[in-house]
Amino acid sequence: MNISHIEHIGVAVENLEESIKYYEEVLGLKCYAIEEVEEQKVKTAFFKVGDTKIELLESTSEDGPIGKFVAKKGPGMHHMAFAVKGIEENLKDAEEKGVRLLDKTPRKGAEGLDIAFLHPKSTHGVLTELCEKK
Amino acid sequence: MNISHIEHIGVAVENLEESIKYYEEVLGLKCYAIEEVEEQKVKTAFFKVGDTKIELLESTSEDGPIGKFVAKKGPGMHHMAFAVKGIEENLKDAEEKGVRLLDKTPRKGAEGLDIAFLHPKSTHGVLTELCEKK
Repeated sequence: MNISHIEHIGVAVENLEESIKYYEEVLGLKCYAIEEVEEQKVKTAFFKVGDTKIELLESTSEDGPIGKFVAKKGPGMHHMAFAVKGIEENLKDAEEKGVRLLDKTPRKGAEGLDIAFLHPKSTHGVLTELCEKK
Repeated sequence: MNISHIEHIGVAVENLEESIKYYEEVLGLKCYAIEEVEEQKVKTAFFKVGDTKIELLESTSEDGPIGKFVAKKGPGMHHMAFAVKGIEENLKDAEEKGVRLLDKTPRKGAEGLDIAFLHPKSTHGVLTELCEKK
């Protein structure tokens, strides 16, 4: 796989507004964008720290993926996203090496990136996202 | 707080050897160090990706913090560590802003860094580590 850096860490939160306050006022980071991704039933807030983003995710529905995650495990880190070059080839290569793909082909994610998820059962527990800016 | 970047993401795994194999052979990252931290009852493996490290953690004991985490939640992301300047002042500032400190003063962690943890109940669910290379 052709990974350059961690593009972002997705963090599930219960209340986006209160969490933004913590990240800004305590950690001293700056929220530079808020975006709703209707398809994923989430509202997201973005922070930049070094070459990585932190993406806070609040569910807009109890039956969305983040809503279910928070109900089961509580708020916390939800997924790790790697910036890659050649996302299609990387997916194919991962599948050949036995990784279960949640997305067989890339789809559009937040910030206009091409994204695809790998199943945590085949990545030693970490829900893993591949991202490419095309 | 004076954060420059994400120093590392700590990932709890069940089997260090098998996980290293996945990170190297599927993700294409390179394990550059393996270290045992007896005090924390863990064996760790380090990978560099961009300016961030991934620190895999296998418990050497069921009653260690990672052993308990895996028993309760399964393998997965365990903590997020920020590189800071002035760790003592940052801890003091966080406490004044209502954050519960797991370490009132820094202690020595892996790779010789000064480290201190913030309680996930006061950081919106993310077990948070501050690190400083002195």
